[in-house]
Amino acid sequence: MKLLIDEKGRKYLVDREVFHTNLGVVNLKNAKHGDIVESHLGYKFYVLNPRVVDICEKMPRRTSIILKKDLGAVITYTGLGSGDFVLDAGTGSGSVAITFANIVKPHGRVYTYEKRENFYELAKRNIEMSGLSEYVEMKLKNIYEGIDERDLDVIFFDLPEPWLAIPHAYEALKKGGFIVVYNPYIEQVKKSVEALKKADFKLIKTVEILEREIEVKDIGTRPATRMISHTAYLTFARKL
Amino acid sequence: MKLLIDEKGRKYLVDREVFHTNLGVVNLKNAKHGDIVESHLGYKFYVLNPRVVDICEKMPRRTSIILKKDLGAVITYTGLGSGDFVLDAGTGSGSVAITFANIVKPHGRVYTYEKRENFYELAKRNIEMSGLSEYVEMKLKNIYEGIDERDLDVIFFDLPEPWLAIPHAYEALKKGGFIVVYNPYIEQVKKSVEALKKADFKLIKTVEILEREIEVKDIGTRPATRMISHTAYLTFARKL
Amino acid sequence: MKLLIDEKGRKYLVDREVFHTNLGVVNLKNAKHGDIVESHLGYKFYVLNPRVVDICEKMPRRTSIILKKDLGAVITYTGLGSGDFVLDAGTGSGSVAITFANIVKPHGRVYTYEKRENFYELAKRNIEMSGLSEYVEMKLKNIYEGIDERDLDVIFFDLPEPWLAIPHAYEALKKGGFIVVYNPYIEQVKKSVEALKKADFKLIKTVEILEREIEVKDIGTRPATRMISHTAYLTFARKL
Amino acid sequence: MKLLIDEKGRKYLVDREVFHTNLGVVNLKNAKHGDIVESHLGYKFYVLNPRVVDICEKMPRRTSIILKKDLGAVITYTGLGSGDFVLDAGTGSGSVAITFANIVKPHGRVYTYEKRENFYELAKRNIEMSGLSEYVEMKLKNIYEGIDERDLDVIFFDLPEPWLAIPHAYEALKKGGFIVVYNPYIEQVKKSVEALKKADFKLIKTVEILEREIEVKDIGTRPATRMISHTAYLTFARKL
Repeated sequence: MKLLIDEKGRKYLVDREVFHTNLGVVNLKNAKHGDIVESHLGYKFYVLNPRVVDICEKMPRRTSIILKKDLGAVITYTGLGSGDFVLDAGTGSGSVAITFANIVKPHGRVYTYEKRENFYELAKRNIEMSGLSEYVEMKLKNIYEGIDERDLDVIFFDLPEPWLAIPHAYEALKKGGFIVVYNPYIEQVKKSVEALKKADFKLIKTVEILEREIEVKDIGTRPATRMISHTAYLTFARKL
Repeated sequence: MKLLIDEKGRKYLVDREVFHTNLGVVNLKNAKHGDIVESHLGYKFYVLNPRVVDICEKMPRRTSIILKKDLGAVITYTGLGSGDFVLDAGTGSGSVAITFANIVKPHGRVYTYEKRENFYELAKRNIEMSGLSEYVEMKLKNIYEGIDERDLDVIFFDLPEPWLAIPHAYEALKKGGFIVVYNPYIEQVKKSVEALKKADFKLIKTVEILEREIEVKDIGTRPATRMISHTAYLTFARKL
Repeated sequence: MKLLIDEKGRKYLVDREVFHTNLGVVNLKNAKHGDIVESHLGYKFYVLNPRVVDICEKMPRRTSIILKKDLGAVITYTGLGSGDFVLDAGTGSGSVAITFANIVKPHGRVYTYEKRENFYELAKRNIEMSGLSEYVEMKLKNIYEGIDERDLDVIFFDLPEPWLAIPHAYEALKKGGFIVVYNPYIEQVKKSVEALKKADFKLIKTVEILEREIEVKDIGTRPATRMISHTAYLTFARKL
Repeated sequence: MKLLIDEKGRKYLVDREVFHTNLGVVNLKNAKHGDIVESHLGYKFYVLNPRVVDICEKMPRRTSIILKKDLGAVITYTGLGSGDFVLDAGTGSGSVAITFANIVKPHGRVYTYEKRENFYELAKRNIEMSGLSEYVEMKLKNIYEGIDERDLDVIFFDLPEPWLAIPHAYEALKKGGFIVVYNPYIEQVKKSVEALKKADFKLIKTVEILEREIEVKDIGTRPATRMISHTAYLTFARKL
């Protein structure tokens, strides 16, 4: 698989020899990673070995993906590292599982729960495309009914009713382990915090992460006119 | 080494058998990870196996540390993963190198440059304390004079004049690799963007990341009264 | 009354001839507005005719004042102007009433309700000090029990339970008039929105206003390190 | 002139007896302010006496208007009130002059400078439509060449090169008066601050104002997904 980037910075994941774009047909038969090839219309394309982050960006998805600004905070707040055993639910299109697997490999594992069969299948294909399948254990299962794993380091919930799975999470985590709950609505945050307290989680903290782009142009420097104002709240807690 | 957490959520890194706190003397002679011990004044302390993130939080430092909100974005934007070869300069107290090493281990490496001997020594002790020394190559060297490594995946600069090292970064990165420049001042951003363009970096983008805490209390739910408004701008770019 | 501003930008409201400061004694006997006088220690003080905004900033208060960022939005969203008839409750230390009176004068009026006698007395003195008493009608009254006025243009509520007064507000406003509810907690916002809907208010909208200072210094330009993250939510609605 | 508001909250400024909308034809022949009329398709419209803020929102414009969040801060930071003498440049479509005039009337005045004849004419019609012409003195003039007025309370600049007019502003203000400079780009802020210092302005402060909408819905409460990230920086200073 190759990552193509055109002159405008648009990215394409390509696993064929001949690829059709708005800027013309690109022949990749003899292209190696690092090359620059020209389409038949004369436009340049960079040919690269895709990083996992490129695959995540371009793979098919049916839901809105969790933004990098949020997933970054999940990683640094929990100190996610190579060798960790982590759980992610629901799987969705698999981008969280892939991002986590790329970090915890080769000796850690990602367990990911999804109860909707169509998402499970989509995520399966995406995880295979990322090349990280051996580090991800997928489960077609409703996490509200229980968690099979024990001694986990980190659990990440992106669920409509996370409070139903929070008691299971407490059982599944090792002491010192983190849970992170991703909630778009403030009512969900309140219910989650309540459930976390009831389940004896400690060090509960809720934040929101905002990202603002800065435009550095010849005419001048300024924040971009528009931004994403809200994706979700992140609630962190720890089993002590 | 043990992580102690008291009833108010304060953390202590302890490598002694007897530890003195405001809440009394704690005897850890027979304490195992996961235990709860009481000080001689009757206060409870959780005894845990520290995660790397705990060590990072509590280790000595002389400069302000890069906040998790920012370091998280660095990781997810670049897709930093296990096995990556990354460079970080200046080392400072070592927290970035430790966070990176915890992700890229066991097959990746962190190269970290620091020209100030006192910071080099401080970081050395901190990295040893984190247990990640074998994945970190420290250099007592001025990065403005050049980078020894080649084929790096990710380079992170927290430097007063990053533009002086940006051409070296281009040489040191593999194609598709990322550079991230951390700049508190907008004037630095402008100079960095200029240098990145001149060095033929592409996909240049500058953001700032804001974190806002939400207080979920019995009296009601609201954002905290105060927040950190600014740490630094993050400028991302890629060698194509 | 004179406004004194020292070399560091600190302001003093002075109604005496001789004034003691950390920077020495200032004799104002012969000082006219616009003069610069020196303290006996040689420090310079600007002598000015205070604007109402200066009086508001320096007058005694017992509660946290509503910040300019918020009060500004109240004014521009409602289009508050000279000649408007407005109501403000609770009075608190009087700063909202004074700001409104300074705008609606000379033909408009501010009605301000306060049930706590000590705040009523404090606000009375502050409003007198502002010189705007003839445009403000103060009421020592619990607004939850009713509003005497009719055909008001704008109503502003900073109350612990604004929903108890929202039906009265509907009666008191003219058609096309605005209500603004100032709520620190999101639970209050929800109850207020519910009460506004029930009272048949339309065009309901809730916002929060954030203010971020930018430091322009020789060393460089950047947002200030810290900021106020939250004061309150502003909910606007209109009687149609 | 009448303000019509339809069932979806859309506003129309109407000075005709018969008005065509997407929701049908509305006959206003016998409609009085406060009535509800039905279109020939059976949709309801509220008929209201427009406030100045309604006229400002609906009047024709050729440039992006200054948002209420920003104009509100201008008013409260300067303490703009009835009776003030203020200057605004450039006039643009007149919305700032109208907002100011609605506050400073009847004894204050707004002086507004515009050098582009087409904007001057547009603003003239808009100011007339607002009914505030007698409080606004319009000038078809390049403010970089000088300011005719003296003893002004507040000056507001929305100009491409405000530094060219800042020395004139100092001459035109009374002692204690405020200047506010509205700058989209940070480079403009820096030049403005430099010019303000050089012109002997004091108490210089730059802020940005952000507005974030909160959605209170049956499904839950959350900030809206998107927001305006940036309009302009506001730099305040004072002549002492």
